[in-house]
Amino acid sequence: MNLDRLNKDMDFIVELDKMKSIYRQTSLIGKDIREDDAQHSWHITVMASLLNEYANEDIDVLKVMKMLLVHDLVEIYAGDTFCYDAVGNLDKLERETKAAEKIFGMLEEDKAKDLKALWEEFETMETDEAIFAAAMDRLQPMLNNYNNQGGTWKKYGVRQGQILKRAEPIKKASDELWAFTKDLIDSAIDKGYVVKE
Amino acid sequence: MNLDRLNKDMDFIVELDKMKSIYRQTSLIGKDIREDDAQHSWHITVMASLLNEYANEDIDVLKVMKMLLVHDLVEIYAGDTFCYDAVGNLDKLERETKAAEKIFGMLEEDKAKDLKALWEEFETMETDEAIFAAAMDRLQPMLNNYNNQGGTWKKYGVRQGQILKRAEPIKKASDELWAFTKDLIDSAIDKGYVVKE
Repeated sequence: MNLDRLNKDMDFIVELDKMKSIYRQTSLIGKDIREDDAQHSWHITVMASLLNEYANEDIDVLKVMKMLLVHDLVEIYAGDTFCYDAVGNLDKLERETKAAEKIFGMLEEDKAKDLKALWEEFETMETDEAIFAAAMDRLQPMLNNYNNQGGTWKKYGVRQGQILKRAEPIKKASDELWAFTKDLIDSAIDKGYVVKE
Repeated sequence: MNLDRLNKDMDFIVELDKMKSIYRQTSLIGKDIREDDAQHSWHITVMASLLNEYANEDIDVLKVMKMLLVHDLVEIYAGDTFCYDAVGNLDKLERETKAAEKIFGMLEEDKAKDLKALWEEFETMETDEAIFAAAMDRLQPMLNNYNNQGGTWKKYGVRQGQILKRAEPIKKASDELWAFTKDLIDSAIDKGYVVKE
């Protein structure tokens, strides 16, 4: 038995508990409580498991799910950067790259390499799996904002063009999910949740 | 496009947000904040993705992960029942069976059937996948309690025999994980976190 390998896994798993205290901008539906990274990661992984039948391309669902489970781990050290925060996003990549070395570096080399590769694939967003994963990551906060009378859209005066740009992976990932999303954005504009452009 | 099917998926996904407000007995590590079902489900699904190399049997990892993502959904309506609560556990199955009809019944029949089957497989704990999934479900709160100076073990005066019984799926699932768990329990007894028997 390779005790050193197993102990590294366990130290990593204990460290991951911190994801439950990294707060995002999005609120839970119907509550004035911000969502954390662990909750968000769970929600979008379930979504991938449920919605993959709508993917335009033939995707490896296990890979998408693994990607979504770990795509935000860097935020344990780099913090959450609000997607519409232009300044915070300037040095996001640098902060997150350092954080990736630290968190994945807790594991044995082969495992560190695998998880880092999944994170990089998600960030680069070029493969069909990464695009579908990104679609889940974009859709979930839209559902929460819509069901929170506008949520962070309304709070920060987010405009139609910004949301459409943010939602682009959904358009690439699935015709069905994009049709749903377009309707949701139109309805959000009608209700005054989003600034029409 | 089957809009009715997709709309059911989306209503289900919105309903799942409630998992983020179902609190368990276990606390987050180093914090006086109770863990919720979404956080717990995320943590154990990552664990399955990371620890499956230690499984005694050849398991279907995707199935284990899907099972763990949804194994607690019934608690949206049935609430969390503390594993050492003898009275609460008397009618747990009845409450959870009703809840399963309600939550999975939100989906189209084929999807409802698939998810309900995964939940039942987890509860019955007979397949290699269900046993490994249960091992993850048991191990994670042990890690949190151990790293919280005894956590709920100490709070409720949990005894060695109760923990060993609760940890049985770990013993069945993996020799390596069981060796780790035995050491953790022994250490917890030495530290006075658990009542020795």
